[in-house]
Amino acid sequence: MSDTQASDPQASDAKAPDPKAPDASRRSERSRRAIYAAALALVAEHGYARTTVEGIAARAGVGKQTIYRWWPANSKAAVLLEAFLDLAEEAAGGPAGSEIPDTGDLAADLKAVLRATVDELNDPAFDRTARALAAEGIVDPDLGAEFTARLLEPQLRLYARRIEAAQAAGLVDPAADPRIALELLVGPLHHRWLNRTLPLTHAYADSLVDLVLRGLLVRK
Amino acid sequence: MSDTQASDPQASDAKAPDPKAPDASRRSERSRRAIYAAALALVAEHGYARTTVEGIAARAGVGKQTIYRWWPANSKAAVLLEAFLDLAEEAAGGPAGSEIPDTGDLAADLKAVLRATVDELNDPAFDRTARALAAEGIVDPDLGAEFTARLLEPQLRLYARRIEAAQAAGLVDPAADPRIALELLVGPLHHRWLNRTLPLTHAYADSLVDLVLRGLLVRK
Repeated sequence: MSDTQASDPQASDAKAPDPKAPDASRRSERSRRAIYAAALALVAEHGYARTTVEGIAARAGVGKQTIYRWWPANSKAAVLLEAFLDLAEEAAGGPAGSEIPDTGDLAADLKAVLRATVDELNDPAFDRTARALAAEGIVDPDLGAEFTARLLEPQLRLYARRIEAAQAAGLVDPAADPRIALELLVGPLHHRWLNRTLPLTHAYADSLVDLVLRGLLVRK
Repeated sequence: MSDTQASDPQASDAKAPDPKAPDASRRSERSRRAIYAAALALVAEHGYARTTVEGIAARAGVGKQTIYRWWPANSKAAVLLEAFLDLAEEAAGGPAGSEIPDTGDLAADLKAVLRATVDELNDPAFDRTARALAAEGIVDPDLGAEFTARLLEPQLRLYARRIEAAQAAGLVDPAADPRIALELLVGPLHHRWLNRTLPLTHAYADSLVDLVLRGLLVRK
């Protein structure tokens, strides 16, 4: 094996930056971002079912083989899942999957993350795409299972860990089920968002946290 | 005006039973039920977007003009909304909009209604149709607003009234907002259902009620 990546077949994979070709790497990154943007825009405009790999490629100005090569399995769902994760990270102002901060003040920490979720759901670009994907996941069990496993459950585990930390600190009743407790926080928010019943505001996020914590906190 | 309905143009409207023609009334009721069944089946099989008034009429064995006459405004949405209300009533074993019982035991009363909702959501016929309609309401703001106003909000008001009654009885903290309290009950249930995260069971319904009431009940 050579001591450079030049003779390694993996080096031709656009995902692995080639140290000898920084321009190629930048071009790949530009193409990747163009594909994300095209995929998100098409889903927001036309829905999941009418979005095609061909359409994404044409709008992104890349060949459709680029998409099939970079996302070989279940290409449309795979590119959209990745594009949406990227959008969620941008909307959240940081990488998805980062822990909920533990300042020692559980109410403040949960309010901060629920307020950020409210802001995300009120962002028109995020809202349209998230609705299109949610609608498809609701009627397509396979796609829904993939979104739930790869997008939703990792987020829910962050809440569970923050609540478990509060239990370890003696603040939350050890008998409370962290899974059900977190569903009391995210469930109402999503219900209000999906059904457009009442406005999603920071005040609402705060009220949810306060009412849920009334039931969770250890009583003195 | 004649003293019978025979010369009244309204008498030819299939919705008004003609006292001189009980068979016509029974035929109308049969047609109405066939239209409901056809509409629900088509939406469950093909989704909202690909269901048409023509398709519903053909499957129900009626002329499409019957559907346009009985549901003149926004016919497809109107017939589906009514068919779904009828399905929900059958699944709930009684007319939608009946009050949540008040036995004096708030926990037992809420568990009974949440368990019934769990059974409804676990019913394959109800599940498929409800998913198809929910998916369309999520991406179509007008349709979503109609479903929310006519189907969802009347149900939510029943919860609000039961919680308000418990406040009046001195059981629930008067400072708790009944609207947010009810969202803590229905939001998690719908989140679990729509995202297919974990099973919907009676035990889950009971746990939700117990954890929410820990925060709501007046502390002794």
